[in-house]
Amino acid sequence: MTGFVSFVSSGPGDPELLTLKAVDRLGRADAVLFDDLSSGPILAHARDGADLIGVGKRAGRPSPKQDHVSKLLVEYAQTGQRVVRLKSGDSGIFGRLEEEVVALREAGIDFEIIPGVTSASAAAAAAGIPLTRRLTARRVQFVTGHDVTGELPEGLDLSALADAGATTVVYMGKRTFAGLVARLVAAGLPPDTPALLAEAVSTEDQRLTRTTITDLAEHLAGSDSAAPGLILYGPLADD
Amino acid sequence: MTGFVSFVSSGPGDPELLTLKAVDRLGRADAVLFDDLSSGPILAHARDGADLIGVGKRAGRPSPKQDHVSKLLVEYAQTGQRVVRLKSGDSGIFGRLEEEVVALREAGIDFEIIPGVTSASAAAAAAGIPLTRRLTARRVQFVTGHDVTGELPEGLDLSALADAGATTVVYMGKRTFAGLVARLVAAGLPPDTPALLAEAVSTEDQRLTRTTITDLAEHLAGSDSAAPGLILYGPLADD
Repeated sequence: MTGFVSFVSSGPGDPELLTLKAVDRLGRADAVLFDDLSSGPILAHARDGADLIGVGKRAGRPSPKQDHVSKLLVEYAQTGQRVVRLKSGDSGIFGRLEEEVVALREAGIDFEIIPGVTSASAAAAAAGIPLTRRLTARRVQFVTGHDVTGELPEGLDLSALADAGATTVVYMGKRTFAGLVARLVAAGLPPDTPALLAEAVSTEDQRLTRTTITDLAEHLAGSDSAAPGLILYGPLADD
Repeated sequence: MTGFVSFVSSGPGDPELLTLKAVDRLGRADAVLFDDLSSGPILAHARDGADLIGVGKRAGRPSPKQDHVSKLLVEYAQTGQRVVRLKSGDSGIFGRLEEEVVALREAGIDFEIIPGVTSASAAAAAAGIPLTRRLTARRVQFVTGHDVTGELPEGLDLSALADAGATTVVYMGKRTFAGLVARLVAAGLPPDTPALLAEAVSTEDQRLTRTTITDLAEHLAGSDSAAPGLILYGPLADD
């Protein structure tokens, strides 16, 4: 008896940014494994009696190891259940999707992936700016601000990241941004490059701050705000 | 009397990948200006009696100029209507959003932008692969395969695009891919870099082809398939 897993991308936070397909899968699930960011109104789409299992890293309790989450996912599916693995944003973008997919493949469990709205799209939409611009930002790139140790990832392609002709979005990068900016400016990115800090995107607590990379680096170096945040920089359009 | 414009991202094609917010805005619109890619079942969410106006570039008729579309959008809003401007994928990514936003601002018309699922997320999800990988693909970047003349855009950042440690997604790049690969390989990208061609993503005609950049370049050079396609290359996970 083998179940089936739907990886469901829950979008940036606003429950209205769920896709119809995500709502459908939530409504038919026997069990929903969720990260804390995607909880609340989104879980209200699950049917009465479905198991709701929090496996997230942001609930103020010790973070479960990734391999523990993968193991739990396999175990739920192996009882023959219809399982939804809810992941915030788009699950394919900084969602640690691969580890769980590999575990399911090894266990011979079928799955599907439902794509979703990534936070970068929501942040840009909220600010009224496009991620790409016809002449000035023909490339858009997403990077993460930290690796598993919490520091800036090693082996950053600084030449790509210091390109003034691209829009760059740094996910989970508030804490390490000051260090990144020092390296970007050393690599040739103008210190007054426009930047946008987007916190708690698409939620009631959303906060958008238009500034420059240098001023934002200074601001963040002296702040310990825990709100999840996304940073955009590059030739951003006027808001 | 001034109307209001909702830029609604319709996602990659599958009507089930509309967001709840997109469905809501379609259902309340007096007029919907749509591109052809987003037509059909998606437009069925519009209410009876709403004006449906095709302004797309893929209907086999001469393409309306972008400034004509912007003008039409302003005119509809100025009659006091609730207008939806439907755009495929995520409107902020290669969606020519900026031109229309600027026109609305100049006319003093309020608007909102509803983000959506971009085709890259849908293609990766369909192939069962993530766009980012924890150790091997810490950066993901989106570029377009042609500029307004239909050729490869000038000023490509070849060093960024030839980075074997990033996942790159080329939107609308089938026709120019052979030329791009020649330049990527000259810039140091291994000729056997994995590639995925994703055509008609998330629709009934979806076709996924796993190959390498070199083989795909050869394949596309001898093909004149008109199906819209997305190309992913880089350290793609196994499917």
